[in-house]
Amino acid sequence: MTAVLAASKPSDWRPTDPDNTLYLELPAGRLVIELAPRFAPLHVENIKRLAREHYYDALSIMRVQDNYVAQWGDPGNRHPTPSSAKSLPPEFEQPLRTDIPFTPLPDGDVYAPQVGFTDGFPSARDPKGAAMWLAHCYAMVGVGRDVDPNSGSGAEMYVVIGHAPRHLDRNVALVGRVIKGIELLSSLPRGTAPMGFYEVPARGPKIKSLRLEADVAGAQREHLEVIRTGTPTFTALLESRRNRWDDWYAYRANRVELCNVPIAVREAVSAQAR
Amino acid sequence: MTAVLAASKPSDWRPTDPDNTLYLELPAGRLVIELAPRFAPLHVENIKRLAREHYYDALSIMRVQDNYVAQWGDPGNRHPTPSSAKSLPPEFEQPLRTDIPFTPLPDGDVYAPQVGFTDGFPSARDPKGAAMWLAHCYAMVGVGRDVDPNSGSGAEMYVVIGHAPRHLDRNVALVGRVIKGIELLSSLPRGTAPMGFYEVPARGPKIKSLRLEADVAGAQREHLEVIRTGTPTFTALLESRRNRWDDWYAYRANRVELCNVPIAVREAVSAQAR
Repeated sequence: MTAVLAASKPSDWRPTDPDNTLYLELPAGRLVIELAPRFAPLHVENIKRLAREHYYDALSIMRVQDNYVAQWGDPGNRHPTPSSAKSLPPEFEQPLRTDIPFTPLPDGDVYAPQVGFTDGFPSARDPKGAAMWLAHCYAMVGVGRDVDPNSGSGAEMYVVIGHAPRHLDRNVALVGRVIKGIELLSSLPRGTAPMGFYEVPARGPKIKSLRLEADVAGAQREHLEVIRTGTPTFTALLESRRNRWDDWYAYRANRVELCNVPIAVREAVSAQAR
Repeated sequence: MTAVLAASKPSDWRPTDPDNTLYLELPAGRLVIELAPRFAPLHVENIKRLAREHYYDALSIMRVQDNYVAQWGDPGNRHPTPSSAKSLPPEFEQPLRTDIPFTPLPDGDVYAPQVGFTDGFPSARDPKGAAMWLAHCYAMVGVGRDVDPNSGSGAEMYVVIGHAPRHLDRNVALVGRVIKGIELLSSLPRGTAPMGFYEVPARGPKIKSLRLEADVAGAQREHLEVIRTGTPTFTALLESRRNRWDDWYAYRANRVELCNVPIAVREAVSAQAR
């Protein structure tokens, strides 16, 4: 994989879009989240509005459940929910669009008829049901909701920090992926109350701020690039994962599962040179 | 799942075997590991010998790689390796035995022709190749080795703390599973050196001791029971995971992947009553 990435061309990478990138600032540091407006346009709009209103600032990480999710929100609903946090219709899946780029995987999937990558996100398709959706791989970001499928707003979000809970696919709006800093969430102490909630949710790590990259001053911005999945470099990367070249491997799987494919992220070359 | 377990009978559970259960004592608390002698008899014997010689005591957690593994060993090889830590032939897989109980899963697998449970561990089978092996699901314990497949001894072990790295299957000796306390490993700070090693491996969390349960005084023992996978209760548990009954689910997968099936562990009922 290192060799494949070292041989990549600048055109194999795309910069993140400041209008679809969030910075989640925790006491321990910054997480960067790439948003997925194609799959959850209403939720992404809501989240961007809430971020612009600074709604998330001073909320807390309330829940860290081992091998599952880390979740933030407003413990005890102390903060008045702004009108922009109104509940939304479900965006759990979208009508299948065959006209948009999709990088399929060749080795099948337990949960979906087809899996691969759309817009740089792990995704699934059902041609018969004419639906497509994002998949709950490690680092994916979803919107918490109550029993009512219309109850999610984006005011509360979770991040997958364990083995892919793919049974959640098509049940929540996935809105993006953590592309930097997930270890700041995954290494948090686990909550000891049911479902991994902290005994005193308000004492969980505070959110210092959650901002859209476009609203952050240039000097404080990240310069990240994400690999384009429709490139020969990505195909080579995928192949290096299906069959590890390393001498260490006594047995080569000749297969790879969706959530074991890394969607590489790097510092922009110009930023590296700074 | 809670309802299924609440309705279980005492005969649905088996106690852990003191001769095949390890206690890993870290500063933060105790982890319990159930060993898998059927799949790696030589490695399990080696590990038990090393534990009896107190070889692991004062070694360190040297590596915590996000979404991958936590690993312990002897940083800088400061401790003379005892003769019982000699390298072993690979036990990466075993000849298929169709005469031992196997609880198959019905929904397929990306990596193996058949998957299910043997002796309470996630496992895979290839009837054509006449082989069987343990699968790298969350919490599984493996033996670190160098490039030479004969270089593992059990002196160094790792635990899966992320999405199942199934490409490691058939490449290392898996020796067991953490059945209690894995959150003490998975919530450790990630190492920042390559492969998640700590910059100063010797400063990682120290192993206070690693003991065989049989060598621990009765009052200090756990009283854990593991669900038997060949029971109607386990079938019901599996079905509750394939199709969540909970009203929260808008879409039921009707499928489950090997590493998403929980092999339930509980406090023994007699211990609960204490």
